[in-house]
Amino acid sequence: MKDVSFPQGFSAAGTACGIKKNGKPDLGVLRSDPPAQGFGAFTRNAAAAAPVAFCREVLAAGSRISTILVNSGNANAATGPKGLADTRTTADSYRTLSRVGGGILVCSTGVIGEPLPMPALQRGIEQLCGSTGGEAGFSAAIMTTDTFPKTAEKELQLGGRSVRLGGAAKGAGMICPNMATMLAFITTDLDLPKTYRPVFLDAVDRSFNSITVDGDMSTNDTVLLLANGASGVRYEILNASEKAIFDGALLGLLRDLAQAVVRDGEGATKFITVEVVGAVSEADAKAAGRAVSNSPLVKTAFFGGDANWGRVLAAAGYSGAELNMEKISLEFCGVKVFDKGMPLSRDEEDMARRMKEKNVSVKLNLGAGEASWTYWTCDLSYDYVKINGSYRS
Amino acid sequence: MKDVSFPQGFSAAGTACGIKKNGKPDLGVLRSDPPAQGFGAFTRNAAAAAPVAFCREVLAAGSRISTILVNSGNANAATGPKGLADTRTTADSYRTLSRVGGGILVCSTGVIGEPLPMPALQRGIEQLCGSTGGEAGFSAAIMTTDTFPKTAEKELQLGGRSVRLGGAAKGAGMICPNMATMLAFITTDLDLPKTYRPVFLDAVDRSFNSITVDGDMSTNDTVLLLANGASGVRYEILNASEKAIFDGALLGLLRDLAQAVVRDGEGATKFITVEVVGAVSEADAKAAGRAVSNSPLVKTAFFGGDANWGRVLAAAGYSGAELNMEKISLEFCGVKVFDKGMPLSRDEEDMARRMKEKNVSVKLNLGAGEASWTYWTCDLSYDYVKINGSYRS
Repeated sequence: MKDVSFPQGFSAAGTACGIKKNGKPDLGVLRSDPPAQGFGAFTRNAAAAAPVAFCREVLAAGSRISTILVNSGNANAATGPKGLADTRTTADSYRTLSRVGGGILVCSTGVIGEPLPMPALQRGIEQLCGSTGGEAGFSAAIMTTDTFPKTAEKELQLGGRSVRLGGAAKGAGMICPNMATMLAFITTDLDLPKTYRPVFLDAVDRSFNSITVDGDMSTNDTVLLLANGASGVRYEILNASEKAIFDGALLGLLRDLAQAVVRDGEGATKFITVEVVGAVSEADAKAAGRAVSNSPLVKTAFFGGDANWGRVLAAAGYSGAELNMEKISLEFCGVKVFDKGMPLSRDEEDMARRMKEKNVSVKLNLGAGEASWTYWTCDLSYDYVKINGSYRS
Repeated sequence: MKDVSFPQGFSAAGTACGIKKNGKPDLGVLRSDPPAQGFGAFTRNAAAAAPVAFCREVLAAGSRISTILVNSGNANAATGPKGLADTRTTADSYRTLSRVGGGILVCSTGVIGEPLPMPALQRGIEQLCGSTGGEAGFSAAIMTTDTFPKTAEKELQLGGRSVRLGGAAKGAGMICPNMATMLAFITTDLDLPKTYRPVFLDAVDRSFNSITVDGDMSTNDTVLLLANGASGVRYEILNASEKAIFDGALLGLLRDLAQAVVRDGEGATKFITVEVVGAVSEADAKAAGRAVSNSPLVKTAFFGGDANWGRVLAAAGYSGAELNMEKISLEFCGVKVFDKGMPLSRDEEDMARRMKEKNVSVKLNLGAGEASWTYWTCDLSYDYVKINGSYRS
């Protein structure tokens, strides 16, 4: 499985250095040779972690990126000035030992409010730079409560040559727009200009910012895209339809990873697609979709297989989105249950069967306009409570 | 137990008429003779239920209120024009059978999106107006998933006479500011002028709008205050300190009921006080308090007895409230764990003991200003998931 190192010029590795108490892999490195143009999308949490501040700073400086170091087991968040100093030390230490040039980014995920265990991290860097290191996969080393690694890869023909995309993500809990303990790393060997940033941010909005597990936005959420040009193909010389093919492939890859994060949501037993249409604006469609997707009552109803679709209307009602109660309608698991403000009679047995599916859906028409947005979420189960009631132990 | 009918001139009763499938009491009536000045605070949910629209209309018309009818088992929400017609029919039917004058208010709580079972309701009204009815308590008849009735009563000496306050509330799930499947009925025999409305609304804000169980705001939330003047004492002739005594007693009674709702939150095992200080504005303090109180990660940590206080900072960080990361500090279960942006070392055993208490607290200083607000919430347990996974069955 090449995943994040599938595009030319990328390599990746992981190791276990003792940040996690259970001995599992907890430090990963992703390298690009030649160094790559870097793009980042970060949490909007005001208590953003030290590595988020550090990555913003490195990307703003504009140098091309050779390395991303990622540790799991400790978020280095709410750690004050020492936290930022520790992140700098991590990057400097890797630079010295690896003798690699170019910008180095650092990401962390795990427990909040504990200082980074620097001796363990130093040991991990030595392992990754030495001959013994790197036997574990990168995508395994970035996991926390994830039950499987999330990876993706694609190959396109553009300008007569092969262009590749790769990706790895970790998720599980604290998943909510902007963006959760979500870390995602996307690679491509296409040469992307700095001006590609808005296209990248829009794709993040339509993928990672459209998923939610529990409504908690983390201090560490980060999506990084590295484009190293090793394919020999430059985005700027592609024609419009080729650009559209690449943009679509990137969005598709981001969505695949984002949806994998939801499918592996803490304790999730169902994958729920929440489509909102008929909104006066995209902002309203997002607000309604987010409220429905985050509602513990909607999520527990799906877990229990209870077709209590009134909770969807209640959530849309408190979302702040404009709704027209005389035109609002709702499809629940593919069955229209509410039409133009009135409940419809329905076959409860058929509905019970549909609720048992692994993939379920809600389609809500607010009856107020033309805008739409889609969210993906999961149900709320006993296991979510269990996992999060004892995360640190 | 007189509770809601403790003040002079009030009487209350309940009956079982078959709206609930399990045969439990499901229709209550609260009467005031003489008819009372009525005040109401309602859900801001855009999908507000038919009875909410009806109560707003009756109160706006300004006539004094003789009766409040309350059914549980069916919320009469998302039921279209027929829902409003059913509420009117309910009030008209009671008026005809009871031959009582004055305004009649109607409240409903229960499942959303099902038409009100009018034959059952009609039977219940006949029972309440006939000689056989009213053996069940009012506070029991308004319960849904509540495990105990929530009532309160107070007696004051004002203007040399006895003035009484009474109250009953139902809560359990869908509890969130503005205001949940929360119904509360407050009575007093003091004579209150219409101009008392802002004082009442402020008290609701500092009580029922400062509690949250699951972040879901319902379609039916209603707090009604009836003041019938039967004590012979008028608020307007009280001196400033007597007015303050009454206002304080009303706020205290509302808080007692609101906190009882939280203590009986669906599946709750802990009562959590979330105090936010050092905010730039009350709005910011509320936003941070609400985010912390609603965070599934904070709530499951309390359920599991895991002192994962970093989640409190993360929730405050995404709340939108302004925070000063160099001055922010946090007391968790009475222990300062984070001071001026830095984590403090702590005694994990002592903290584990404190986490086992039934009443726990979080005090967060945002370090940004002088404003404060307090929320009350409960933990998120297996039983919350169980109760809400099968509510309709």
